[in-house]
Amino acid sequence: MAVGEVLQSWHDGLIKSSIVEFVARVTNRGSTDYVPPAERIAVFDNDGTLWCEQPMQVQVFFALDRIKHLAKRDPTLAERQPFKAFIERDFKTIASLGKRGAFEFAFMTHAGVSEEEFDALAHAWLEAERHPTLGRLFKRCVFRPQIELLDYLRDNGFRTFIVSGGGIDLMRAMSEEAYSIPREQVIGSSLKTRVDVQAGVLTLFKLSELGTFDDREVKVENIGLHIGRRPILAFGNSDGDLAMMRYTLAGPRARLALLLHHDDAEREFAYDREFRLSPLSEALDCAEKDGIRVVSMKRDWCTVFI
Amino acid sequence: MAVGEVLQSWHDGLIKSSIVEFVARVTNRGSTDYVPPAERIAVFDNDGTLWCEQPMQVQVFFALDRIKHLAKRDPTLAERQPFKAFIERDFKTIASLGKRGAFEFAFMTHAGVSEEEFDALAHAWLEAERHPTLGRLFKRCVFRPQIELLDYLRDNGFRTFIVSGGGIDLMRAMSEEAYSIPREQVIGSSLKTRVDVQAGVLTLFKLSELGTFDDREVKVENIGLHIGRRPILAFGNSDGDLAMMRYTLAGPRARLALLLHHDDAEREFAYDREFRLSPLSEALDCAEKDGIRVVSMKRDWCTVFI
Repeated sequence: MAVGEVLQSWHDGLIKSSIVEFVARVTNRGSTDYVPPAERIAVFDNDGTLWCEQPMQVQVFFALDRIKHLAKRDPTLAERQPFKAFIERDFKTIASLGKRGAFEFAFMTHAGVSEEEFDALAHAWLEAERHPTLGRLFKRCVFRPQIELLDYLRDNGFRTFIVSGGGIDLMRAMSEEAYSIPREQVIGSSLKTRVDVQAGVLTLFKLSELGTFDDREVKVENIGLHIGRRPILAFGNSDGDLAMMRYTLAGPRARLALLLHHDDAEREFAYDREFRLSPLSEALDCAEKDGIRVVSMKRDWCTVFI
Repeated sequence: MAVGEVLQSWHDGLIKSSIVEFVARVTNRGSTDYVPPAERIAVFDNDGTLWCEQPMQVQVFFALDRIKHLAKRDPTLAERQPFKAFIERDFKTIASLGKRGAFEFAFMTHAGVSEEEFDALAHAWLEAERHPTLGRLFKRCVFRPQIELLDYLRDNGFRTFIVSGGGIDLMRAMSEEAYSIPREQVIGSSLKTRVDVQAGVLTLFKLSELGTFDDREVKVENIGLHIGRRPILAFGNSDGDLAMMRYTLAGPRARLALLLHHDDAEREFAYDREFRLSPLSEALDCAEKDGIRVVSMKRDWCTVFI
């Protein structure tokens, strides 16, 4: 297939060529870089890599609405931080918690919810709620070039995984429809769970204790746990993805690590070092030395959203 | 397809019919029990369900050899329990540790080993080592009827997972070849891991701390974590699988839970309540009440091994 026929939303150039050439090398049986299909593992961060994460990650918006709901039952919540900040959409205070602080708090609002209840809540929310400035449904804030890339990789025998700091079950509620990625190929942060009987039915409930916060080195540990194989392609957009990209590149033969730089204030957002909820700083500085390819949204993508 | 043409190693009878009828119901678009392919999740225990676990689980034999190797470096190990029992193949003392005790000790012998080293060790061991009484390679101690069942389910759009108390990485070293189950569809017990640099290469190492012991209710928690969806079929052989079978049966519409009873001393082994390393007792007593179908190896399988 000619380069022009695949990845239609990607501008021709160094990045697109590097992807197409990499895929050709690992799928060509005559190549010394040939990788059998079972080992063609590609891992993608979600927030900021597959969909928009500004002004805050979708996970945080989901928690805002959940807390509003909880505050109806217990109005005193509105007086307490960080509940107050979430209820008042005080982005500055939320950002001051940092990624882990804000996410952990967001996750805790789901303690006591069963997996089936959570899935129904998440589905209903994703069907209804819109991004505050883009106007589109959150679930439609996914990037078209990445959907094409996921399809292209799978067409070439890859298995595609999400490895993200986002809550595993919120991602699972949209990964099949949005990315054609089955639930079991989603790795994320999660609360511990416990089996209990509810109305006579054995059910899994979320506890208020964090099981894993899937960021930085922990992403590598979770790749080991869930996949059990070193990926050959990694795609991220923040310092939280650096360990996963380095781990991917450290294997033998051909490897590809890509880093999305949000430099497109016109079509999406332009940000990097100053984004408190997931900065891109160290990864940008070491990308060239480490062999990580920086994708410029402005330069490399013809279209941004689906 | 006629019943006679599938599952050739299964004798015609109630069990085989119940499997074939279940698969027909959930795959027939006209049926009220129809399940879309994405939701056709089948979970299988490994030890004693997909392969032989007598006189001890393969995991324990693997540890015996590992400890023998460690004792060469540190001969004082041979004086200390439970090292001594493992080195002397003192099955009685090992069994007295119980499943969790014996397995935890076995896992700890891999602390400090990188994932790549472990995989090479496990592959080499599985290629060379034989079952003490069956005479066949351990990796050939898998059950032919189960291989047929896995294939049959996948032919009908199911995704097949292993959910076992065995060490996740030992199973992954044979799951693709033996069961056509990819590494990421294997869930098991595991040590925690840590990323570190070895000879300039970012690598994942096993720690000496247990991450998860995948047995009983924890199997359900790990299904939630790794799969994120309630299975519609579960197959086990011990009390350690009871929670997983009940969880599977507790969902809506058609469900199937199968329990293998080892009652065939002639072709394999006959055991249940007295097997200290993984007893089958409570599950046998409650099978009928809970709607779990008991598979008799003697009655239902034409052939046992591949």
